[in-house]
Amino acid sequence: MSDLPLVVFTPSGKRGHFPVGTPILTAARQLGVDLDSVCGGRGICSKCQITPGRGEFPKHGVTVSEDALSPWNAVEQRYDDKRGLKPGRRLGCQATVQSDVVIDVPAESQVHKQVVRKAASARAITMAPATRLYFVTVEEPDMHEPTGDLERLQRALRTQWPELADLPDITAELSLLTTLQKVLRKGAFEVTVALYQDHTGASPRVTEVWPGLHENGIYGLAIDLGSTTIAAHLTDLVTGEVKASSGIMNPQIRFGEDLMSRVSYAMMNPGGEVEMTASVREAINTLAEEIAGEAEIDPSLVVETVFVCNPVMHHLLLGIDPVELGQAPFALATSEALTLSSSDLELSAINPRARIYILPCIAGHVGADAAAVALSEEPGTSEDLALIVDVGTNAEILLGNTERVLACSSPTGPAFEGAQISSGQRAAPGAIEAIRIDPVTKQPRFRVIGSALWSDEDGFAEATAATGITGICGSGIIEAVAEMRLAGLLDGSGLIGSAEQTGTPRSIPEGRTHAYLIHDGRADGGPLVTVTQGDIRAIQLAKSALYAGARLLMDEMGVETVDRVVLAGAFGAHISAKHAMVLGMIPDVPLDKVTSAGNAAGTGARIALCNQDARARIEGMVREITKVETAIEPKFQEHFVNANAIPHATDPFPELGQVVSLPKVNFNAGSTGDAEGGRRRRRRRA
Amino acid sequence: MSDLPLVVFTPSGKRGHFPVGTPILTAARQLGVDLDSVCGGRGICSKCQITPGRGEFPKHGVTVSEDALSPWNAVEQRYDDKRGLKPGRRLGCQATVQSDVVIDVPAESQVHKQVVRKAASARAITMAPATRLYFVTVEEPDMHEPTGDLERLQRALRTQWPELADLPDITAELSLLTTLQKVLRKGAFEVTVALYQDHTGASPRVTEVWPGLHENGIYGLAIDLGSTTIAAHLTDLVTGEVKASSGIMNPQIRFGEDLMSRVSYAMMNPGGEVEMTASVREAINTLAEEIAGEAEIDPSLVVETVFVCNPVMHHLLLGIDPVELGQAPFALATSEALTLSSSDLELSAINPRARIYILPCIAGHVGADAAAVALSEEPGTSEDLALIVDVGTNAEILLGNTERVLACSSPTGPAFEGAQISSGQRAAPGAIEAIRIDPVTKQPRFRVIGSALWSDEDGFAEATAATGITGICGSGIIEAVAEMRLAGLLDGSGLIGSAEQTGTPRSIPEGRTHAYLIHDGRADGGPLVTVTQGDIRAIQLAKSALYAGARLLMDEMGVETVDRVVLAGAFGAHISAKHAMVLGMIPDVPLDKVTSAGNAAGTGARIALCNQDARARIEGMVREITKVETAIEPKFQEHFVNANAIPHATDPFPELGQVVSLPKVNFNAGSTGDAEGGRRRRRRRA
Repeated sequence: MSDLPLVVFTPSGKRGHFPVGTPILTAARQLGVDLDSVCGGRGICSKCQITPGRGEFPKHGVTVSEDALSPWNAVEQRYDDKRGLKPGRRLGCQATVQSDVVIDVPAESQVHKQVVRKAASARAITMAPATRLYFVTVEEPDMHEPTGDLERLQRALRTQWPELADLPDITAELSLLTTLQKVLRKGAFEVTVALYQDHTGASPRVTEVWPGLHENGIYGLAIDLGSTTIAAHLTDLVTGEVKASSGIMNPQIRFGEDLMSRVSYAMMNPGGEVEMTASVREAINTLAEEIAGEAEIDPSLVVETVFVCNPVMHHLLLGIDPVELGQAPFALATSEALTLSSSDLELSAINPRARIYILPCIAGHVGADAAAVALSEEPGTSEDLALIVDVGTNAEILLGNTERVLACSSPTGPAFEGAQISSGQRAAPGAIEAIRIDPVTKQPRFRVIGSALWSDEDGFAEATAATGITGICGSGIIEAVAEMRLAGLLDGSGLIGSAEQTGTPRSIPEGRTHAYLIHDGRADGGPLVTVTQGDIRAIQLAKSALYAGARLLMDEMGVETVDRVVLAGAFGAHISAKHAMVLGMIPDVPLDKVTSAGNAAGTGARIALCNQDARARIEGMVREITKVETAIEPKFQEHFVNANAIPHATDPFPELGQVVSLPKVNFNAGSTGDAEGGRRRRRRRA
Repeated sequence: MSDLPLVVFTPSGKRGHFPVGTPILTAARQLGVDLDSVCGGRGICSKCQITPGRGEFPKHGVTVSEDALSPWNAVEQRYDDKRGLKPGRRLGCQATVQSDVVIDVPAESQVHKQVVRKAASARAITMAPATRLYFVTVEEPDMHEPTGDLERLQRALRTQWPELADLPDITAELSLLTTLQKVLRKGAFEVTVALYQDHTGASPRVTEVWPGLHENGIYGLAIDLGSTTIAAHLTDLVTGEVKASSGIMNPQIRFGEDLMSRVSYAMMNPGGEVEMTASVREAINTLAEEIAGEAEIDPSLVVETVFVCNPVMHHLLLGIDPVELGQAPFALATSEALTLSSSDLELSAINPRARIYILPCIAGHVGADAAAVALSEEPGTSEDLALIVDVGTNAEILLGNTERVLACSSPTGPAFEGAQISSGQRAAPGAIEAIRIDPVTKQPRFRVIGSALWSDEDGFAEATAATGITGICGSGIIEAVAEMRLAGLLDGSGLIGSAEQTGTPRSIPEGRTHAYLIHDGRADGGPLVTVTQGDIRAIQLAKSALYAGARLLMDEMGVETVDRVVLAGAFGAHISAKHAMVLGMIPDVPLDKVTSAGNAAGTGARIALCNQDARARIEGMVREITKVETAIEPKFQEHFVNANAIPHATDPFPELGQVVSLPKVNFNAGSTGDAEGGRRRRRRRA
């Protein structure tokens, strides 16, 4: 037992004996306690705040006296006067050990703090950012020992920060050298360095240098680069806090709504891929400026960006012709994770040396977005068998448990997003997002985005007067089709009955088929909102593709059922699980086993941004995932065709279809399906 | 003793026993014999040519039978038909061991071949280039194992080239990914890779990929980026052969003739450094295109470039404001060697991913050009004490032996290059480059560039009719001043005597001083070529600076004499050693101990280009060199003032000066010198 005072840190429980006069920060470092510091103990950054205990700590066997720490000193007083310290707080670099003491490290003083994610089901993100700030005092130049400014900066980092002493050579991009000398002199050779040091073991890299102590923070962008929208979260790289979130349309839509039409554009138009790359990079710059403006943050403080995206967007972001992704064997130019500089991608809106991390692609059709979903949802750690579906223009599907994880992508097309639907529209105020149809009266009631009221509730007309009722969005069309089936307006093959067959004048003729009238706004100059036979077919194609992909993974896994279903994607958050199952989008599980993960791809991007260990984790996971290619599996077509029916226990008007009787809810049985649709889809892939 | 056949390789003498049927290339690799191969033994690249011996080899204790190797095969026949094999040659990958054999590896089949340098005194360059070619067969993409094309290329390199198996991850710039897929498919997944792998231990990097076997070679540029001229050698990176050499004026001259005026330009004109950087990069691109055109080589085959330059040019090439180099303490932004990509320097004329190596700077005034001289001349391996002087607008001076090496730079100004001289001009046809003055008659005779005749020889007028006699170049002015002193036209303080004092009408009045008339071409419309008192003063300033620098290093080394002097620089090659010593440019050594090293900086650049071990060597050397800063050494001023006199054993007209009698040729004694000149120089530095 040592005679030296005992220092116990909470919450870690780490403890050790230290000589009287040892600063708490020093004790913490020696014990490996997670206590932050940017200035390295100079008493200027205030990151090392701690709370000393007082009195008895029977758990630790310690009695802490009033003077267990050195008295409050001038440095602390100055900081308190200037910025304010919370009551009871001390600066860990100033307060020194005098006798036995218990020291609490508050969460905000920990580097590896946990950030609670918004989604209720989600795990917390542990902060372990690749970029950290280091304050150093650089030796001034000396003619008698004429090393360069960069070399003296490197030496200062190594000698003043023991954690950097044994790392490989610290490097910098050429562009840093063009500003380094001015910054050093402006800061009188005291500077704060943003040092990027990631999981790969590559040389650490100086991203930015600020004169003096940099107190304006550093930030990162987590970007989910989708075919249709580009969404970004501007994240504080110290606290993990999301400062702003914003989205923008992907301007590549003008080259083609879906991925394959963009690939075609590149094939048909020499230089087309260059045009598309330029347009998406420009949009990302616009988005970065907007989001930084919204958060009132200087965009040059954005020193990292993480991208998740599907393979085609991945290639178009990188400036790689996606033509190989348009044909078997769907060869990626590169599948592994990439670390680049913002200048490589012409992301001029953010710091010119910001480091870019792009998650690995799983396969030619299963991109870094699916990898991000895997990182967020970690199917490989699930004890029960989880099916994770990220619904978008393509559906990314993961199936797995601790034994094995499988992945595929399925070309659902944009119908689930309200595109290619006669009254379809994007999720925006005025769009019908939920609908119920009375099975007896066949009358609909619905809710539109922008109001919480149902259309049969008082005040609905007033509440929606401003927006009107403009169309149906993705979640609305899914509910509409499912409700039509439940209400007997639709048979198992997906055919809409006539007014005679259904007994409602809302079945209106539409060419040689019928449509179901949801809302007639024409009297007020609004649209006629209907679900047409064509809409039903589009949804059938989309849901069949989704179901067939899931089914293919289940075949590969050798299972007939899954334990739970996770719906991911911005759209996944709004899908009614019940309606999705009525429609046969997803395999049959108890309703309470269907959860929404929100924007799991975006969350995965945020995790990779905040935690560099997660980058190593997802790179390892992707190597382990079994990739299943839907486009070449004959069974995919089979499942696709078989999944075309819209199952429902009681068939409403059996005279219409060739529907077999369904003894239980079996989403995989039904009509022989829409062979034409299958062929059409095959052609698009060829 | 093994029963297996013995294989002895010459010239290495390496030997080993191998099973019957072992290809010679395989045996060579197992023994570590330096035998080249690009295709890895596929019989298509022909780089592994060997010459088997026949008969008795008593030295090796081997008798080689007629059928010691397998018979000439179809692959060899095909190659011989197509390209021709020298008689007696076999392909090492095709010929297999049958019984004891002696195999000679001709120089051209060695990777580490020696390239003989042109200068007689020089060592050979051993080839050990950082970039080498590797032919590989890449696995075709497979949907069931969807790795990217880059990852399969990396795997092919590792598995097909054992020497690459244990290296760190092979990387590639993003721009390679934009062409990789097309090249792989064009080559039917057989490609040749240019792989850059240098002395730093950094990850090897794919610079370029060509479809199939690339047979057009790879090249490098060794560039000596001077204040006045930019000189380049286009070098074959396999053979080391210089394919073309070319030079271009440094367009930065329009911003200032000398370095300090360019630094001033950057200080006085916001953005001036950006302008100067753009202009020099543009000139380098022009030069690269010209030299490639001259050698009839596709510039995209230039995959490496090495730069040597002084610190100001170093910063201006890199885009760094050189302002810190214009004032004490002359802090470099970075002093260490740099490895960059051609895109970093906007060198668009060469391969977009060409690797750029810039030698380390020794100090704020002693640049990468001095480092290159050190690499070429290796003072640190000299048993006797060598003084190496690279004469240009600045003189780089090295003094050393195996014990210690010192370096400094001295601001000689442009007088040695014919600038700031009344009849001065650059070395070009028509310029007087050599001159002799008869000590009795005081009549000059001279030679002009473009003719080997002296002016008093028959046919001189005809030989020089085309160019005329236009002025005096750098070597001419040095000889003129020295000869004037030897002929008694000039006293020890540098004063030109009047016609009465010298006894020749060639001493003509020039204001309040006198000039010496060398040639009067006015009758034919040519110039009056004279040496004025101002010219003498300019040469005195330049030579004093040079001498004072050398002297300062000698002080630091604690010596009064050196063993030998090496004159380097394009101009050094033309200086008459005798005249340089008469002038007092260099310390006193026996005439046969003064050698010319030619363009040693350029040679150093070529060595670093051809041999990556040399890069490690010069980086180590530079760390060991003692840097001496002339600008802050009070003794430099003292030496400078003291060196102003032009020493000569017999003073011609002692009544003119206050010259002390000189008992022996002591170049360091003389008048009290030109204090005004010293002050003027100091002011330029302040």
